[in-house]
Amino acid sequence: MSKSVGKSIPRVDAFEKATGRAKYVDDLCGRDALIIKVCRSTIAHGYVKSIDTKEAEAICGVVKVLTCFDVPDIPFPTAGHPWSTDPSHQDIADRKLLNQHVRYYGDDVAVVIAENEIAAVQGVRALKVEYEELPFVLDVQEAMKPDAPLIHDERGDSNIVAHTSINNGNYEEARKEPGLIKVEGWYDTPTVQHCHIENHGCYAYEEAGRVVVVSSTQIPHIVRRCTAQALGRPWGDVRIIKPYVGGGFGNKQDALYEPLCAWCSTKVGGRLVHYECTREETFVCNRVRHAIRTHIISYVRPNGELVARKFEAFSNQGAYASHGHGIVAKGMGAFPQLYPCPNVECDAYTVYTNRPVAGAMRAYGIPQAMFAGESHIDDICKAIGMEPLEYRRKYLMPVGYVDNFSKNEMYYDSFNQCLDKGMKAIDYERKLKEYQNQTGPIRRGVGVAVFWYNSGVWPISLESSSCRMVLNQDGSLQFQLGETEIGQGGDTAFSQMVADAVGVPVEDVHVVSTQDTDVCPFGTGAYASRQSYIASFSIKQTGQALKERILEIAHEQTRMPVSSLDLVDGKIIRTTDGRVLKTLGELATESLYSLEHSQHITAEKTTQIKSNAYTFGCTFAEVEVDIPMCKVKLLNMVNVHDCGTLINPALAEAQVHGGMSMAIGYGLSEELKFDEKTGRPLNNNLLDYKLSTMMDHPHLKSAFVENPEPTSPYGVKGLGEPPAASGAPAIRNAIFQATGVAIDRCPMTPHVLYKEFKAAGLIED
Amino acid sequence: MSKSVGKSIPRVDAFEKATGRAKYVDDLCGRDALIIKVCRSTIAHGYVKSIDTKEAEAICGVVKVLTCFDVPDIPFPTAGHPWSTDPSHQDIADRKLLNQHVRYYGDDVAVVIAENEIAAVQGVRALKVEYEELPFVLDVQEAMKPDAPLIHDERGDSNIVAHTSINNGNYEEARKEPGLIKVEGWYDTPTVQHCHIENHGCYAYEEAGRVVVVSSTQIPHIVRRCTAQALGRPWGDVRIIKPYVGGGFGNKQDALYEPLCAWCSTKVGGRLVHYECTREETFVCNRVRHAIRTHIISYVRPNGELVARKFEAFSNQGAYASHGHGIVAKGMGAFPQLYPCPNVECDAYTVYTNRPVAGAMRAYGIPQAMFAGESHIDDICKAIGMEPLEYRRKYLMPVGYVDNFSKNEMYYDSFNQCLDKGMKAIDYERKLKEYQNQTGPIRRGVGVAVFWYNSGVWPISLESSSCRMVLNQDGSLQFQLGETEIGQGGDTAFSQMVADAVGVPVEDVHVVSTQDTDVCPFGTGAYASRQSYIASFSIKQTGQALKERILEIAHEQTRMPVSSLDLVDGKIIRTTDGRVLKTLGELATESLYSLEHSQHITAEKTTQIKSNAYTFGCTFAEVEVDIPMCKVKLLNMVNVHDCGTLINPALAEAQVHGGMSMAIGYGLSEELKFDEKTGRPLNNNLLDYKLSTMMDHPHLKSAFVENPEPTSPYGVKGLGEPPAASGAPAIRNAIFQATGVAIDRCPMTPHVLYKEFKAAGLIED
Repeated sequence: MSKSVGKSIPRVDAFEKATGRAKYVDDLCGRDALIIKVCRSTIAHGYVKSIDTKEAEAICGVVKVLTCFDVPDIPFPTAGHPWSTDPSHQDIADRKLLNQHVRYYGDDVAVVIAENEIAAVQGVRALKVEYEELPFVLDVQEAMKPDAPLIHDERGDSNIVAHTSINNGNYEEARKEPGLIKVEGWYDTPTVQHCHIENHGCYAYEEAGRVVVVSSTQIPHIVRRCTAQALGRPWGDVRIIKPYVGGGFGNKQDALYEPLCAWCSTKVGGRLVHYECTREETFVCNRVRHAIRTHIISYVRPNGELVARKFEAFSNQGAYASHGHGIVAKGMGAFPQLYPCPNVECDAYTVYTNRPVAGAMRAYGIPQAMFAGESHIDDICKAIGMEPLEYRRKYLMPVGYVDNFSKNEMYYDSFNQCLDKGMKAIDYERKLKEYQNQTGPIRRGVGVAVFWYNSGVWPISLESSSCRMVLNQDGSLQFQLGETEIGQGGDTAFSQMVADAVGVPVEDVHVVSTQDTDVCPFGTGAYASRQSYIASFSIKQTGQALKERILEIAHEQTRMPVSSLDLVDGKIIRTTDGRVLKTLGELATESLYSLEHSQHITAEKTTQIKSNAYTFGCTFAEVEVDIPMCKVKLLNMVNVHDCGTLINPALAEAQVHGGMSMAIGYGLSEELKFDEKTGRPLNNNLLDYKLSTMMDHPHLKSAFVENPEPTSPYGVKGLGEPPAASGAPAIRNAIFQATGVAIDRCPMTPHVLYKEFKAAGLIED
Repeated sequence: MSKSVGKSIPRVDAFEKATGRAKYVDDLCGRDALIIKVCRSTIAHGYVKSIDTKEAEAICGVVKVLTCFDVPDIPFPTAGHPWSTDPSHQDIADRKLLNQHVRYYGDDVAVVIAENEIAAVQGVRALKVEYEELPFVLDVQEAMKPDAPLIHDERGDSNIVAHTSINNGNYEEARKEPGLIKVEGWYDTPTVQHCHIENHGCYAYEEAGRVVVVSSTQIPHIVRRCTAQALGRPWGDVRIIKPYVGGGFGNKQDALYEPLCAWCSTKVGGRLVHYECTREETFVCNRVRHAIRTHIISYVRPNGELVARKFEAFSNQGAYASHGHGIVAKGMGAFPQLYPCPNVECDAYTVYTNRPVAGAMRAYGIPQAMFAGESHIDDICKAIGMEPLEYRRKYLMPVGYVDNFSKNEMYYDSFNQCLDKGMKAIDYERKLKEYQNQTGPIRRGVGVAVFWYNSGVWPISLESSSCRMVLNQDGSLQFQLGETEIGQGGDTAFSQMVADAVGVPVEDVHVVSTQDTDVCPFGTGAYASRQSYIASFSIKQTGQALKERILEIAHEQTRMPVSSLDLVDGKIIRTTDGRVLKTLGELATESLYSLEHSQHITAEKTTQIKSNAYTFGCTFAEVEVDIPMCKVKLLNMVNVHDCGTLINPALAEAQVHGGMSMAIGYGLSEELKFDEKTGRPLNNNLLDYKLSTMMDHPHLKSAFVENPEPTSPYGVKGLGEPPAASGAPAIRNAIFQATGVAIDRCPMTPHVLYKEFKAAGLIED
C-alpha cells in the first residue's frame, strides 16, 4: 500500500491561495452589509461619564449608535480554552461588550453601525465621550504594589490575576552548601504582536432566531461558546463559520470581536453587520504576547551541577484576563523539567496593567521562558568556564525522564540528536574556536539554545477531537474536523493521515476546510501545537470505523468474509490472493443505489486524548556584531526539531522557517511601545513596528530528528509553535560569545546594545 | 410529553422569508462573479453550421465565448431520478452542454461569459450563427408518423421515446358483451410552465481541483451526479450547495443549467461564474408540463358497471428526454386502479417534438390523467343518466384494494370520507338540484373530480433517506437531511418530527436548511410528494439512535439503568417516579467537557423505504358560466385530502391552496403557445401567459380526512402534489352540469368555449 504520510505532497489549498481564489471573511461578506466601527478610549484608565451620540446619529448613513451604557451587564471570558464544568477552572469573565470602566488606551467604548465605512468613521469621530480619568500603570511590578491604580476593582483589591508556585526539595537549605557558585539574572521580554497577514474580522446576521457569525478565528467551537456567554443566550443559539484564515498565531485563539459583532446584529433587526479591524486596531485591541520579566538564581557546583534554583516570573497581562495565567504558568512549568535540579522554588505572577490585553501567542510563554532560562544557562557557563553546548549535553533532561504531572516521557536521546544535527549544519565547533578572543570592532559569535514544548493541553485541560467522513459514489471522500486550517497547512497533513487511515489515495480525500459549528464535529481548534497530534487520534479512529463499514458492505457485495478483505489504495482486495475485487467507487455506487439495501457510507467518532508528548529542539545562531554601531547581523540560523514522524516534510520545513522568522523579530527588532505619560501605543503600525521580514533573515536552515512518538497514531507530535521558541536566546548567546556582553532583554536593538556595550566598557559616550 | 407533530406551529423560516432576509442563490453570489448569457436557437429544428465569435470576443468586458463546437462530446441525462445501476433503468442521455443539432426554438447554442451583464448580452447579440434548417414538428401524433422529421437521429428512426402497455383481462372479448353502452372521448391538456417565483439560477467556481455549484434546485445530490456525468468527471469532483429556493414545482427536479455553469467555470480558470435564467428563458429553456392527449373508451353496463376500457395517451416530450416516459406512465398507472375494471387495455406513448422540454411538474402526469379520466367518468354518467357523485361512490376503488405492483393498500374508506366532507362544504346536494334545467344565458353548475396519488417512487425507483443529528451543549440540536426545503414548508414539518423523535421541544430543533453535498447526508430531494413520508423514516430512526446515545450517557452520568430513563421535553426523566434528573443541556455539556469520557453526541442513519402509500382526495367546484361571453367564473372550490396524519395543519392547508391555484390556472387560463410556422414560443412571459392569481380565485376551501397511514412512522403520506391533481376536471364537470357541454380540453378559455358552445348550438356566430 502506498502511504501518503511522510510525503511532501503539495498543500491541498496551494492553488487557491497562490492564485488569490481562496475566500476569506471579507471576500464572503454580502454586498449589503452594514459596517461597524468602534469608538476607542483615548485614555489609559478611567470611566466613561457620558457619550453624546446626537451628532453621530444625525450623519447620513449612520444606522445605529450603541455605547457602553447599552450593553448587557454580563461579564464574559474570551480565552480560547476548552470550557470546564469546574468553576474554579473556568476562564476569568472580566469584560463586557463595551466598557464603561476603560482600562487601556484603545478600549472599546461605543460602536457606530452605518450603511458604509465613511459614515461609520464619521459617526465615530462625531461621538463626544466624556471621561473621568484615573492614574494608570504600565509596568508589571509597579502594578503589583499596594498603592498601584486598581484596574479591576470588581475583582478584589489587587491587580494580581493569579500567583502559582512550584516547590521541589528545599531551596533555602540546599543553597547553603559550601562552595556553590551563585548565578543570578533578570531577563525581560517585550510586548509583541502576532502580525498575521489577515487582520481579524467577522460578520454576523440573524437567521431563524439564531445569530450566525462568520469569523477569522482559530477556534470556531470555542468562539461559539464565548459569544453565547457574552450575549447571555443558550449556546445553541449561536453558529460560527470559519472560512480560510490568513494566519492567527494565537491572536485568533480568543473571542475577539465576534461577540460584539453578533450583538450589533441583534440590535439592527438581525441585519448583516461587518466589522474588520484595521492594522492599528489589530496591534492594540486584539491580543499581544505577554511581556514577562523573569528573575533566576542558580546555585551550581563548580562542575556545573545544579543544586538549588529560584525562578520568579512577572507576566504583564494588560487590561483584561484573556488567557491570563496560563502563559507564564507554562513557562514556569518548563523550568524544573528542562534542567532537572533537586531543589527548586518557582513563583509566577500574572498582573493586570493598563496595556493592551495579552493572550495566546505562538509558543505560549515558552519564548519568554526560553529567553530567560537559556540565557541564564550561558551565564552559568560563563561563571564556571564551561562550553555551553557541553553544559547542555550534560545537564539537560535525560532519556527516560518522566514528568509526574503530564506523564510525558523522554523516550529518545532527542536533545543530543538535535544538537548533533544543528552543530554540524552551522559548523559549530570550528566557529566556536575561531571566534574566541576577538578584539576588533566587528566580532562574530555562535550561540545555542534549546526548547521544551508539549503537544496539546492534556492534562491541564480537555483534549478531544471529533471527525466525520462521508464517502462519495466515486470512492472519494470528504472529512470534517473541528481542527482548523489557519494557514499552517493543517488541512494537508490531515488529508494525508485520512488517506492512510482509510486506505485511499490522498487525491481522493477532500477536506471540508470550513468549520460550521452547526454541522462540523466538535473540536477545539488550532492552538497548543495540538492539531496534528490530537486530530490524528480521531482521524485514525474514524478512518478505521469507515473502513470497517466499507469492508462489511464489501462482504455483503462480494460474499467474501471480512477477514479476507482489505481496502488498499481505493480498491477492495481479497487478501488471500491479492485480487482486486472491485474499486471503492464501484462499492459505494452499488451500496447507495442498491434496491436491496441502500446505505450511504459515513463514519463519525469522538476521541478523547489522555496523553501528551514532549517535543524538543534547538536553535543555533551565528552573528556578526558591529560594536561601534551597536548592530547585530544574523549570519546563520539553524533550527532542529524532534517533532516525531513528519507528516509532510516540506510543510514542516515551511512551518519551521515561519517560526524562525518570528524568533528573529522577537530577538532583534520587535516591540510594541507605549508613551509613559499617556499609555498611548506609539508604533501600532507596520511601518514603525519593526516586524522581521525576509530582508532581515539569513538563509534559514532547518533539520529534523524523526523519533516516532509512541503515544501518537502516526508518530507525530507538536511542531506549530516550537519553531518560535529558541531563536532569540540563541542570538543572545551568540552575541554573548562574540562580545562577552550578556544582553538580558529583548529585542536586542541598537538602543539596548548601546547601553549594555557602554556599561561593559566596549564603547564610550 | 407534549407532542409537536399535529400542531400548526409557525414556519421555521417564516421570519426570514417574510422580512426578505432569507438568502437565495442570487443573494449569495459573490460580487466578482462573471456573468453567463446563453445564445439560443432561432429555429425550431436544424443544425448549427458555424458561429462567428469574433465580433463578440472584441466587446469590452467579454471574457470568453464558448460554442456548441467546444463542448465535450458527452451526452448526459438531466432527469431528477435516483440513479440506477441497471443500465436499462437509467435516464436517457440525449443532450450535450450546448447543442449543434438544435431541436427547439430556444435551444442552447453558445455562451458568452463577461465581466458584466451588459457585455454578456451584447456578446450574445454579436454572435453570428449560421443554421441549416430542417422541418420541425410540434404535435405529438404528427411526430409519431413515419415521415415526421426525426428529432434524435442518434437514437434510431422514430421519435417515440418510449411506449408501454398495461393489459388486464381481455378488452376485445369483453366489449362484445351485449347491451353495453360505449362511451368514448379524446381529452387534451396543454403545455404549461411551473412559474415558481424564483427563476432558476446557479453559480459555479472551482475549489481545490473540484467544481462547486450553488444552485436553485430541488435535488442537490442528483444534480451533483448529473453535473459530473455531463462533465465526464468523477462524481466526487462536484459539490452542489442548495440555499433557500423560491419554488420549484418539479422544474427544478432536473439538472437545468448547473452542468453548463460548472463547465463554464472550468473554462475560465475556475473563476466564479453566474447564470440566471430570465423569465422568458424559464418558460422555454427549463422544463414544462407534458401536454398529453388521451383517448378513452369505456364499455359500461346500464348501471354504470365498467366492463371493458381502453386508454391511450400521447405525451408530448419536446426536444429532450428529461423525465421522459415516467410522467405518462404514471398517469396510465392510475387508470386501472382508480375505477377497477376487469378488462383494460392501456397504451402510453412519449414522443419527441420540437417543443420545449417537458419534465416533472407538480403531480407528474396525474393532472393530465385526472382531467381525462374524471371528465370521462362524467361522460359515462351523462350516458347512463347517473349522478356523478353516486357513480364515484359506487365504482371507485374499494376499501381493502391492494395494488399488486406497489403493494399500496386502501386501508380506509377514504374516498367516501373525502366526498362527504367536500359535499358538505360546498352544499353539493342543494346546488346540484338547484342547477338542474337552467335555460338562461348565465348558468351555474357544480362538479366533482377525485384523484389518486402515491407517496414517493418505490418500487419503481430507489427510496432512501439519510439524516444526521448533532446535539449542542445547551440541549438544542441541528439536523441535516438530503430532503429539501423549496418553499413548501418541509423544514418545518421535519423539525416537528425531529422534536418528537428525540423528545425535545421543537424550539430546540434547528434545521440545517442548506444542503451541501459535501457534508449533507445523502437524500434525493423534493419530488414525488415523497419528503414527509420518506424523511419521516430516517428522522424517526436517527432520532431514536440519538436518544439511545443520550440515554446511555445519562446512565453513565446518573448511574440509573437505561431502562429507567427517558428523554421527555428536553429533560432526562427517571421513569419510576417521573423525577427530572437533569436537563438535556446539562447532560450534553457534561458529556462534551467530561475529563473522564468526553463525547460529542451525534447520530446518523440511512433508511431505505420499501413501502409506498396511496394518497387520495377530491375537488368540488362551483362555476357560473356566461354563455354569450363564453366566460367561466369560479364561484367556489373545495379540496379534501386524505394525506394521513397532518404534521402541521396550517402548512397543509397552505399547500392545498397553492395546488388549487395551480389547478385553476390549468383548467381555465394557462397555456404556453407556439407559432405553428416557426415553432417560436408566443407567450413566454408573465404578461401574455395567463397564470392564475389571487384575483382569479374564489375563497379557497380545504378540508382533511386524517386516516393515519399504517406504513408511515407518523401516519403521514404525500400531500405536496395532489392539490393540483383534480381541480381542472372538477371545473370541467361543473361547466358540464351548468351547460350540458363537455369541454374536453384545457385550458377552458373563452376561445375554446366559444367553439364548443357554438358546436352545441348554445350560441350562434
